[in-house]
Amino acid sequence: MIITAKQMILGDGATVVQNGALLIKDGLIKDVGNLADLKAKYAGEEVVDHGDSSMLPGLIDMHVHIGATQDRIDSEVYSRYMVGYNALDFVQRALIDGVTTMRDVSSADGLCQSIINASKRGMVKGVPRIFHTNMAISATGGHTWSSESSIECDGENEIRKAVRQQVRAGAEWIKIMTTHRTDGISEYTQEELNVAVDETKRHLRKTAVHATLQPAIEFCINAGFDTIEHGTDINEDQARRMVEKGITWVPTLLVHYVTFERLQKILDECGELTERQWETYNLYKPSNESFRKNLKKYADIGVNIVTGTDMIADGTASVADEMAVMVEYGMDTLSVIATGTSNCAKVLDMEGQIGLLAKGAIADILVVNGNPVEDIKALKNVEAVYFGGERVCR
Amino acid sequence: MIITAKQMILGDGATVVQNGALLIKDGLIKDVGNLADLKAKYAGEEVVDHGDSSMLPGLIDMHVHIGATQDRIDSEVYSRYMVGYNALDFVQRALIDGVTTMRDVSSADGLCQSIINASKRGMVKGVPRIFHTNMAISATGGHTWSSESSIECDGENEIRKAVRQQVRAGAEWIKIMTTHRTDGISEYTQEELNVAVDETKRHLRKTAVHATLQPAIEFCINAGFDTIEHGTDINEDQARRMVEKGITWVPTLLVHYVTFERLQKILDECGELTERQWETYNLYKPSNESFRKNLKKYADIGVNIVTGTDMIADGTASVADEMAVMVEYGMDTLSVIATGTSNCAKVLDMEGQIGLLAKGAIADILVVNGNPVEDIKALKNVEAVYFGGERVCR
Amino acid sequence: MIITAKQMILGDGATVVQNGALLIKDGLIKDVGNLADLKAKYAGEEVVDHGDSSMLPGLIDMHVHIGATQDRIDSEVYSRYMVGYNALDFVQRALIDGVTTMRDVSSADGLCQSIINASKRGMVKGVPRIFHTNMAISATGGHTWSSESSIECDGENEIRKAVRQQVRAGAEWIKIMTTHRTDGISEYTQEELNVAVDETKRHLRKTAVHATLQPAIEFCINAGFDTIEHGTDINEDQARRMVEKGITWVPTLLVHYVTFERLQKILDECGELTERQWETYNLYKPSNESFRKNLKKYADIGVNIVTGTDMIADGTASVADEMAVMVEYGMDTLSVIATGTSNCAKVLDMEGQIGLLAKGAIADILVVNGNPVEDIKALKNVEAVYFGGERVCR
Amino acid sequence: MIITAKQMILGDGATVVQNGALLIKDGLIKDVGNLADLKAKYAGEEVVDHGDSSMLPGLIDMHVHIGATQDRIDSEVYSRYMVGYNALDFVQRALIDGVTTMRDVSSADGLCQSIINASKRGMVKGVPRIFHTNMAISATGGHTWSSESSIECDGENEIRKAVRQQVRAGAEWIKIMTTHRTDGISEYTQEELNVAVDETKRHLRKTAVHATLQPAIEFCINAGFDTIEHGTDINEDQARRMVEKGITWVPTLLVHYVTFERLQKILDECGELTERQWETYNLYKPSNESFRKNLKKYADIGVNIVTGTDMIADGTASVADEMAVMVEYGMDTLSVIATGTSNCAKVLDMEGQIGLLAKGAIADILVVNGNPVEDIKALKNVEAVYFGGERVCR
Repeated sequence: MIITAKQMILGDGATVVQNGALLIKDGLIKDVGNLADLKAKYAGEEVVDHGDSSMLPGLIDMHVHIGATQDRIDSEVYSRYMVGYNALDFVQRALIDGVTTMRDVSSADGLCQSIINASKRGMVKGVPRIFHTNMAISATGGHTWSSESSIECDGENEIRKAVRQQVRAGAEWIKIMTTHRTDGISEYTQEELNVAVDETKRHLRKTAVHATLQPAIEFCINAGFDTIEHGTDINEDQARRMVEKGITWVPTLLVHYVTFERLQKILDECGELTERQWETYNLYKPSNESFRKNLKKYADIGVNIVTGTDMIADGTASVADEMAVMVEYGMDTLSVIATGTSNCAKVLDMEGQIGLLAKGAIADILVVNGNPVEDIKALKNVEAVYFGGERVCR
Repeated sequence: MIITAKQMILGDGATVVQNGALLIKDGLIKDVGNLADLKAKYAGEEVVDHGDSSMLPGLIDMHVHIGATQDRIDSEVYSRYMVGYNALDFVQRALIDGVTTMRDVSSADGLCQSIINASKRGMVKGVPRIFHTNMAISATGGHTWSSESSIECDGENEIRKAVRQQVRAGAEWIKIMTTHRTDGISEYTQEELNVAVDETKRHLRKTAVHATLQPAIEFCINAGFDTIEHGTDINEDQARRMVEKGITWVPTLLVHYVTFERLQKILDECGELTERQWETYNLYKPSNESFRKNLKKYADIGVNIVTGTDMIADGTASVADEMAVMVEYGMDTLSVIATGTSNCAKVLDMEGQIGLLAKGAIADILVVNGNPVEDIKALKNVEAVYFGGERVCR
Repeated sequence: MIITAKQMILGDGATVVQNGALLIKDGLIKDVGNLADLKAKYAGEEVVDHGDSSMLPGLIDMHVHIGATQDRIDSEVYSRYMVGYNALDFVQRALIDGVTTMRDVSSADGLCQSIINASKRGMVKGVPRIFHTNMAISATGGHTWSSESSIECDGENEIRKAVRQQVRAGAEWIKIMTTHRTDGISEYTQEELNVAVDETKRHLRKTAVHATLQPAIEFCINAGFDTIEHGTDINEDQARRMVEKGITWVPTLLVHYVTFERLQKILDECGELTERQWETYNLYKPSNESFRKNLKKYADIGVNIVTGTDMIADGTASVADEMAVMVEYGMDTLSVIATGTSNCAKVLDMEGQIGLLAKGAIADILVVNGNPVEDIKALKNVEAVYFGGERVCR
Repeated sequence: MIITAKQMILGDGATVVQNGALLIKDGLIKDVGNLADLKAKYAGEEVVDHGDSSMLPGLIDMHVHIGATQDRIDSEVYSRYMVGYNALDFVQRALIDGVTTMRDVSSADGLCQSIINASKRGMVKGVPRIFHTNMAISATGGHTWSSESSIECDGENEIRKAVRQQVRAGAEWIKIMTTHRTDGISEYTQEELNVAVDETKRHLRKTAVHATLQPAIEFCINAGFDTIEHGTDINEDQARRMVEKGITWVPTLLVHYVTFERLQKILDECGELTERQWETYNLYKPSNESFRKNLKKYADIGVNIVTGTDMIADGTASVADEMAVMVEYGMDTLSVIATGTSNCAKVLDMEGQIGLLAKGAIADILVVNGNPVEDIKALKNVEAVYFGGERVCR
């Protein structure tokens, strides 16, 4: 099958091919070129022409929590089965929206691997590619310590054990929590963070760390995590060291942006906030300012930046929305598209396989109406999604 | 929308309308007639013509266990989530096969209600109408006592408590187990069975009882259960009393039939069976003979007989297969179709709402190629399924 | 194979055949007669001639506890496995001593059935025929309540459940405890005892009750247990009612006899006993007197009396020793031999199958040097044991 | 008693004496020589002449799991007692096959010591000499972590405690698990492995480690374990260092060989394997190739190689089968016989006491028909087994 569209955005942060086309076979992109050439080369091959639309690699969301249900009003009916069905619904909708790969950075024990196993056995359909950390590892009293998606532990022995438990449960990534919302004290010591990274590397897995403020960010860069989640307060010197050490930044701009906007609106309209709302407002106001100031600068310095919606499973936001904030903060659209495609592939050790329209890559393709290079919001007008060469039905 | 097909089998056990048609609106059958009349009466209404096919009410399976996974080889990976995904797959496939309503007569705690809740919230799609017992209630050491789908309890106090626990979990039915596989000793005393029925009636629910042999069947008829499951050994006197007391029979012929056939084949080919296979063989040989001898006789006496596949979630059999055994045992095809439609509606207290093509009924409709009145196996050639007026997509 | 010996004691309490012989085939006694006749009738059949010895049916011990290890000094090393090996050793030695059938009247949960299962699978050899109660049922604080061989329960519901648990575990008998050592208050009410018997009968099992003194014995006769264990204080009126109701008496004389003798010896030699020893002495002195006074009388009245060593698994006593006490108490030797053979078969519902040298019986045979009719102690000079027609090797 | 046979294989890997003889007394070999000399020297001594047969030291199996029952279909009936009886059956059959000593490298807690204790007390008969590790020590999620034969622990404190728990339970060896089946990542860090070895040495016990692939093998050689189990991937440099450090190799060739052959047969016949079977196939194909390539080479370098069947208690294979694979892989038969005799004695610190026909050794002797030096398979034709000077009866 040859697929074609007016714009073909390769996902490399630079290239757009007009009237480009792809030869899809056995789930892979077997050839890339312009339509005329491919038609000549593969005469008789079926052609699916998406007209004036644009095609790009399937999107990648590097920061999700598919099992999160804590904001649901009816949480008391959330049996284990319900958590499972809710998560399934979430990942199926994400695929329909063009997210062909996601990384879950903590959910309830066993959930992500069960959805993968059920998908492999054909019990459930429409599940995207999922990488996961199983649960997160939190210090006693640390961030999300009371959640069923966290395991609370301290010290070298317990941390090594906790890492092994996640590996046993099928995790390709290990997620460490090390800052609370209100200050930047690192919940784990430098030594504990180092142990977490060391034990994970021994298992040939990779590490993600939740760290927002200083000095925790400094500890995390020292320890050499593969991705820093949020990293609101990263300073320029640290950004340069992240480049040197190959550390990826997952700012999760959107969740900060929409939460702050919502609170600002309440404040404007009502003139007051609850205590808990004030707390969040006072946290997110500076973090949004920091993101706005630094995003493009750090991208220019060379930090590998990737999208992550951090949208717990309520489906109210998307990678496209996250990218729109990036554009608002000054990045050019092709670089922004790379943050949800090839930049992610790099850190997932899937370079050339996903996040790129290139010969030999897996045929994960998103087709949207309009041209996202001109208007990033066009990514929300999904026309078709191909996952491993198969068109996803809604 | 008007739906039409060459044969319209009403499901009342008697009527077939040639070139009949239904007016579907708001999920209901708003009118019933022949095509010409309805077209005249509702000019401009869209007509869906299923040609030479047959339409009948959506089928009802009165005896399923959607959570059963014990026969799966890879049971060690069956987390709670996996049990949930497996059950979802099972009920979705049943709907595609034309089963629009089912009654689950014991699964793991909370499973059935979770799937219903998830379906109501739109998290999962393609789920048929489900009535359920939540768990079954078994005597200590009684049938299925060691399964996670049973609660083991004895005596008035514990039985009343167990009934209340199932009601709390959303059960419309209470399922009692009272015979093991190898003899007919009633695991519960007459007094205990009476208590189970009494407590259930106090909650305005209905009762199903697993009882295969004598004298347990006698105890159950005395106690006045609403449905007797299996009832292999029911004698003619008891059948007459079941008519008087309004007790429905759910013979689950198919599971006995196919299990015996499979073992007979092994015996013929290998000349021997394992100890466990002999046990099953010696149990099912007489039960099949009994079913063959009694099914039509008891139907003629007036016993309300309904289909129940008892097929645990491996999807290898269907209501259509169950009906084929009924035809082999001498019942006429229209009566057989009633066992999976209007007969079920009666005992589910849904008479006129499901299991019937009639004005005012819910638009649960099965369309099959061929004519099941002539060949019941035609029910397996599913052309379309409408569930609450919506066509089910595969 | 033809087996012959000078004396052939049939086990019926009456008959001794001189130079008798048995034809053994397929594990059964196929013919019985004198040697000359059988040799003529079955010319060419191998003859095993036990010379001047005596043969009689394999012995039956109606009261054992194969899992009991509480008197072992090194009880702290008694892991579950050790209890298992100890029990195995005990039953194997009993078979070598000529006990081809035994009834265990309470051991740790699952032990007896496991030894039976292991024997069926060929994992262990030399295991006699075992009937068992699994655990005993004791009232809260009742006899042996703190032992792992007892389940403590009260009231109708719990007793019915406890009976079912033993049935589930494979018990053919149910054992109830209802008196402590020091008084005759029935630990269970009449109603509770009735319930125990009723629930057991519903499962087609039989009941044994531990009852030593009055008025508990009266309660037990009212309830209609199948065997009364110990029954030290049974009075003449009760003995007659036991005959009417078909209740068997298992006096377990030996354990009382040897315990008392041992304590009397200590008292004679040392002039004093410990408090606990006095308690036992004061209990067993009258009980031995009662047994001595009543045994022959009740046998003459027609009470079915059977042997039971109550010897917990230390192997220091035997059925032969128990029988020697019976002879000392006045019974004739042929009647005494019947207490360990045909009398037991009756109550085990194995009449004609075991405990008798008769055509059609299972070939369980004990051959001893000397003539036990003249000297019961000859039973200890074991020459050969046949179990199901196979000669038991040591 | 003088025992003699045509061939007397001393077990030292070199010597065969024609018409050799042994003087056996008090369970020991008191003298060794040729028959004529010994007869002259000990006139009047009973002579047991095994004719044309061969005698050699009783065999030693260095890698067994007597408690393993996971492949049994009827695992649901495997109570603790049944596991005990199954293990007993396994070790008794091994002794009959000529295995007079075995080392169990992980079974359920207490099992091995219980069988030893029961044997010492005479409760069970026919039990060979058993060395054991009690349970194995596994990292969280590490090899066999979910088995009842493993204790899951991490870090110095937990590992030292786990070693002490095994010592308390009677273990002479400590077994560490450190690789899974599918990759060679060391589940334990170098520091953790070092701690395990250190704590074990403090208790004067010895250490065995399950390690199959690289780099885990390197970690284990560094740590200085006494035996490396499996060691599929050991390279030549490592083999030389094992010689220097006195580390023994227990390749367990047979289990790899027969498993692969069985899967290859299924693949040839059916053309496909299940996912799990492929996993095993892909693991065992290269391991067999590696064993075939390296066994003789490493033996020549001087690595102490010993037999280990790794046959869980299903009794389908034997030390003789293991030795046949060694011969197929190029070793000469006398060296192969040493792998199951004197080589084992060395590592068990029993040199000169077992595994050798020499003056002063324990009289553990295997007599087989034929000549195993010419055909190793002759080891399967067992004529007699002497254990501590006593002839083992079947």
